[in-house]
Amino acid sequence: DMWQNPEGAPKNLASDAIINLDHGDPTMYVPFWKSIGDKCTVVFKGYESLSYFSNPKNPCWFLEPKLEESIKRLHGAVGNAVTDGYSIVVGTGSSQLLQAVLYAVTSHDQANPINVVSAAPYYSSYPEIMDLVKSGLYKWGGDAHGFDKDEPYVELVTSPNNPNGVIRGAVVNRGGILVHDLAYYWPQYTPITSSLDFDVMLFTASKCTGHAGSRIGWALVKDQEVAKKMTKYMEVTTIGVSKESQLRVAKILQVVADGCKRFGSPDGDNFFEFGQKMMAKRWEILRETVKKTQMFTLPKFALQHCTYFGELTQAYPAFAWIKCKEGIEDCEKLFRGHKILTRSGRRFGSDPAFVRGSSLYIMRQHSGWSFISAGAPRNKGL
Amino acid sequence: DMWQNPEGAPKNLASDAIINLDHGDPTMYVPFWKSIGDKCTVVFKGYESLSYFSNPKNPCWFLEPKLEESIKRLHGAVGNAVTDGYSIVVGTGSSQLLQAVLYAVTSHDQANPINVVSAAPYYSSYPEIMDLVKSGLYKWGGDAHGFDKDEPYVELVTSPNNPNGVIRGAVVNRGGILVHDLAYYWPQYTPITSSLDFDVMLFTASKCTGHAGSRIGWALVKDQEVAKKMTKYMEVTTIGVSKESQLRVAKILQVVADGCKRFGSPDGDNFFEFGQKMMAKRWEILRETVKKTQMFTLPKFALQHCTYFGELTQAYPAFAWIKCKEGIEDCEKLFRGHKILTRSGRRFGSDPAFVRGSSLYIMRQHSGWSFISAGAPRNKGL
Repeated sequence: DMWQNPEGAPKNLASDAIINLDHGDPTMYVPFWKSIGDKCTVVFKGYESLSYFSNPKNPCWFLEPKLEESIKRLHGAVGNAVTDGYSIVVGTGSSQLLQAVLYAVTSHDQANPINVVSAAPYYSSYPEIMDLVKSGLYKWGGDAHGFDKDEPYVELVTSPNNPNGVIRGAVVNRGGILVHDLAYYWPQYTPITSSLDFDVMLFTASKCTGHAGSRIGWALVKDQEVAKKMTKYMEVTTIGVSKESQLRVAKILQVVADGCKRFGSPDGDNFFEFGQKMMAKRWEILRETVKKTQMFTLPKFALQHCTYFGELTQAYPAFAWIKCKEGIEDCEKLFRGHKILTRSGRRFGSDPAFVRGSSLYIMRQHSGWSFISAGAPRNKGL
Repeated sequence: DMWQNPEGAPKNLASDAIINLDHGDPTMYVPFWKSIGDKCTVVFKGYESLSYFSNPKNPCWFLEPKLEESIKRLHGAVGNAVTDGYSIVVGTGSSQLLQAVLYAVTSHDQANPINVVSAAPYYSSYPEIMDLVKSGLYKWGGDAHGFDKDEPYVELVTSPNNPNGVIRGAVVNRGGILVHDLAYYWPQYTPITSSLDFDVMLFTASKCTGHAGSRIGWALVKDQEVAKKMTKYMEVTTIGVSKESQLRVAKILQVVADGCKRFGSPDGDNFFEFGQKMMAKRWEILRETVKKTQMFTLPKFALQHCTYFGELTQAYPAFAWIKCKEGIEDCEKLFRGHKILTRSGRRFGSDPAFVRGSSLYIMRQHSGWSFISAGAPRNKGL
């Protein structure tokens, strides 16, 4: 049972096994976390962390001070985002924070819900999140390229982009509110080219260190009033965020920050070096396979100077945005015929000649193709 | 600084100190959890719980099997709710589960949002939760006693009730959907008179064991399709629930279940005995004080046979619903004048002659009155 070995797929895959590349589950990072021993071990005694409160002096009263400190240290060490002058809001994953932002930047006095747009191909969960409870504050407005209304709007800028790994900027540019979803702006996935300082920036432990089960996201927010309203949203919807998760992720981010300035260390305790090497290997095999099949194309990424690694590096996105060659209209169906589950380009507001496959998974030989396979047997909207 | 000693208020309170009884924070249980030593200690290594998934065989795929087992064992041991034939859905506190239920029992095809009602005095957070994002699926419909519309509705039945500790049933009784919020249906707060088997029952670790910082709630749901839609809500809003919190609470509930069948043990490892004794002491002093002041009245509760303790017991609610005597119209203002923060009856859809004070806090002599004081210095909507 593949599920029993989440960190490694079985050695021999049955010829009728279904390979699920539909979603990403970052268990591929488990070997790194095993290799570093007890440095990240956290212990909770029965009497600890009972209170609702973490820091009453902070407007985000449920944010653990240790997590706040680790987040600042890590961004400082990596150089991917500015934290000076920003408020930090913690969330149950970055999905909850995205909803909190929308609550914070809209008003109950609005006559109509504000449009929330994102350039196609966009993260397939955005439309679902926006329209889940038919909010009167906001609604999904579709592909930002097609948004031509002369009214307030929110644009979600996902960079690097899910599904295609591209570095992006805003496309509407008519003074709307921008929310930058930077889940993948870490050195294992993409060259870090500058320390970003957008108004609202969302990050998540799931993609940074692989600790998806902890459900910890954070927002860096320039406007204190927006941060306060986001905090209010968390207070009403979930009365804060798990303290155990916050304290564990605080420890993990601290260990990553400590190790990440040592390059080429024989101890191998630089998480981003490990991650980049693994992603590079996966992309190498993926590109070789795609080349052999002659049926697909993959995005190409220019070498760029990465300020973190201090050298020219390549992007290795967590997902492969695969395009079928001319004549095949439904790429997802083609894969399904080979017992490989992917997510159709349609789901991303794009062309069915595309699919998104997860590259966070373990490589396997299958159907004559060597692809990157999944451990999880079910379809999730991740 | 009171905040530095969350489990015990300072020995000497300054005469100008503000006592905050506005909200409840269950740190009063800390001494019990200290007394039981390492039995509840949990350890997380860096490589554990990375995956999004907990149990792909369960429709609630993010529910840790150990938590599911502990929940069933504890309800079985206490005898307060039936779990056979129920689906269990875990949430980030019971607030999130309440929102999930409303999503699950409504439809995107509805022309208008369904009314959600609850009998006054009702939990002051309900209106805020319902109307937070102006959902088109549901809206706050106010006091259930005044609901006379001939249309579908949801009635929230809080029992024991927050703020007044009363055991309640539905009041509208016209075939609406019932959601039972049973956060306080545990032996330290109220006599357990039967094992409940309502369609949807909500519980939370915050009130059961005092682990509010973990943000773990659970729903017992009779209809599998409702449980599936609730799971979907969790999936879209937060992609599941913290694994660390789930695994820690699983351990804590297991220890409580193990100890709770030993009565009068010299080890003092029965959490509910400890809790009831503490609540009884607080209520004794509160009643004495109120009697002395001659200015207030408190609710009275009949002795009832508690199936858990096997004897006649008294209710000791987590909150005191205090009424000013004739002639004083604004009870909250009166308390505020004495530097004691309470929550006005108005906030509960009731009379300003009432206030709710927390009895989860530590008793202090203040303003000539001996009251139950708070450690937390800020006002929260708890």
